[in-house]
Amino acid sequence: MKRLTSTPASDGFHMPGEFEPHAGCWMLWPERPDNWRLGAKPAQAAFVEVARAISRFEPLTVGVSAAQYDNAVNLLPDAVRVVELSNNDSWVRDCGPTFVRNDATREIRAVDWVFNAWGGLYDGLYFPWDKDDEVARKICEIERVASYRAEGFVLEGGSIHSDGEGTLYTTEECLLSPGRNPELTKEQIEEKLGSYLGIEKIIWLKGGIYLDETNGHVDNICCVAQPGTVLLAWTDDENDPQYAISKENYDILKGSTDARGREIQVIKLPLPAPICITAEESQGVDAVDGTLPRCEGDRLAASYVNFYTANGGLVVPSFDDPNDEVAVEVLQGVFPGREVAVVPAREILLGGGNIHCITQQQPA
Amino acid sequence: MKRLTSTPASDGFHMPGEFEPHAGCWMLWPERPDNWRLGAKPAQAAFVEVARAISRFEPLTVGVSAAQYDNAVNLLPDAVRVVELSNNDSWVRDCGPTFVRNDATREIRAVDWVFNAWGGLYDGLYFPWDKDDEVARKICEIERVASYRAEGFVLEGGSIHSDGEGTLYTTEECLLSPGRNPELTKEQIEEKLGSYLGIEKIIWLKGGIYLDETNGHVDNICCVAQPGTVLLAWTDDENDPQYAISKENYDILKGSTDARGREIQVIKLPLPAPICITAEESQGVDAVDGTLPRCEGDRLAASYVNFYTANGGLVVPSFDDPNDEVAVEVLQGVFPGREVAVVPAREILLGGGNIHCITQQQPA
Repeated sequence: MKRLTSTPASDGFHMPGEFEPHAGCWMLWPERPDNWRLGAKPAQAAFVEVARAISRFEPLTVGVSAAQYDNAVNLLPDAVRVVELSNNDSWVRDCGPTFVRNDATREIRAVDWVFNAWGGLYDGLYFPWDKDDEVARKICEIERVASYRAEGFVLEGGSIHSDGEGTLYTTEECLLSPGRNPELTKEQIEEKLGSYLGIEKIIWLKGGIYLDETNGHVDNICCVAQPGTVLLAWTDDENDPQYAISKENYDILKGSTDARGREIQVIKLPLPAPICITAEESQGVDAVDGTLPRCEGDRLAASYVNFYTANGGLVVPSFDDPNDEVAVEVLQGVFPGREVAVVPAREILLGGGNIHCITQQQPA
Repeated sequence: MKRLTSTPASDGFHMPGEFEPHAGCWMLWPERPDNWRLGAKPAQAAFVEVARAISRFEPLTVGVSAAQYDNAVNLLPDAVRVVELSNNDSWVRDCGPTFVRNDATREIRAVDWVFNAWGGLYDGLYFPWDKDDEVARKICEIERVASYRAEGFVLEGGSIHSDGEGTLYTTEECLLSPGRNPELTKEQIEEKLGSYLGIEKIIWLKGGIYLDETNGHVDNICCVAQPGTVLLAWTDDENDPQYAISKENYDILKGSTDARGREIQVIKLPLPAPICITAEESQGVDAVDGTLPRCEGDRLAASYVNFYTANGGLVVPSFDDPNDEVAVEVLQGVFPGREVAVVPAREILLGGGNIHCITQQQPA
């Protein structure tokens, strides 16, 4: 399939909002035993439940290594398409393509960012990441979608949220991190985002969820419900280090207008109580040099903001926390037309992310 | 995607003729150095030319191992879709799905035969063949096509040709070979073919091309141009061992009527002069226990019948032989509406097959 050297913006393409109609969704199958405990079997079971929920709402494809193909096909529901797709780990939100649309022609293309495992040799989470960096292109081939390779520009899909109407939400903690594009100024990064995503205005939040190993991906702390309305992960506990981060972002959002000049409505989505890795969970993970260890007592970056918006549905993580119900209530209020499917997400959390991180929508 | 335990015939499906309209075509990328000389580089160049020719006529997908993915993408034309697809070798005609169609609903499904490398432990050509045996299923997943696994029944797509109107052409040499389904009688095999392909009548030819290592696949000696008309590989040289084989098949065809009661028109397609492996060609192949060796002087099973019928076109092998032109003339006469693309095929021949063997049509 065609690789393009122009940019989406110059060709009339932009990134739609996740809440716009999808042709389908992509996931990758977890397997690496130095990130997923017990040979990834509990994680695979959790991914299967996410896949089951998504495939009720829209077509889903799961990419899987050759070695795990049979196992994945056997565990996943019939409705799910399973394809071979080499990867270093299963975070298709971050290594997958960012699809863009031309509203005049309705054509879909994709941006293939440089992926360096959330920080490369500076503070990346594993080595190597060569297979992940090819995931976007391989998905584009399967879908017969032309792609723009953002040569020399490191970005993960989880670090951006588009409102589909010219506004992009991101965090300084991530996009200005020294492990990604240290040679670019903030203005140069804005220019890249503009030309690759068809974006006119960027709302720069400061930090992400406390201790989020992605250097504060926006998709764990703030997402767009509809143009002009965002959900922000929130705690009222002023002693929690998360409070100051969320409060700072709240103030930024309330002090900004979006690309269309709208004031931004901020809906607070409560966080669960802090969740930490148990000794048993830690012991199930292979210790491998170069891969971020999973140590007993480490606090996990749990957040309900990391849900997936599907056609007519939401797939929302639960943590066995009293706020599980509160989060569903808030989300149901914000998305009245969508059915909420709740999936236990602790096993995904243990790998360093959540439901949104393991999905990638493909716009219709 | 769904795996079905019924049979195509009972569900109203049958195998269309190759000359009917296609949604596209599949190929696999050659790489094994114990079958393809010089690390498969000359074969890859030949496959690229076949791919280029087919992709002028219809959408083409090439399946490739993870290891060869980048190389294949770089060598193949932009119009070709490239997907990861593990395999033991590149004969998608034989290990790929046989697509079937329901004429009432226009739905496409596929038969996933058991593949055992042309004879399994009896006289198969390499070991193991586990990845090949999964190729059909993986193609069906990518295409979102439901499939029937023909559990316990060994068959390769190159051993059958359908006229799309109830008649199947095959050879006794192959289908009754001891390495495939020795526990089944000829009548039981007929029953299987009937229920998996929606076939009413089978024309049993005797043997295939002389020394064809597939145990005489029909697709190298005889193919259907249109219902009631077949092309038969032919030599007038009575001293060539091929003569008696072709003559016997000619007599069978002339003495038969097809499923619709038509007498069969047989068009003779001349063979090239015998082609043998050179010392240099033989030396480029790794010698590996369990894989058929490629020895200097071995006669190759060259035949023009092994062409591919695409939408509006034919892709025809050439052998640097005076009959190259004659074959094209005959084929152009038989397929007046189709453009003939000629591709040099010696490098494919050296691996044990030809253009038809490395392709698999997917009906529209």
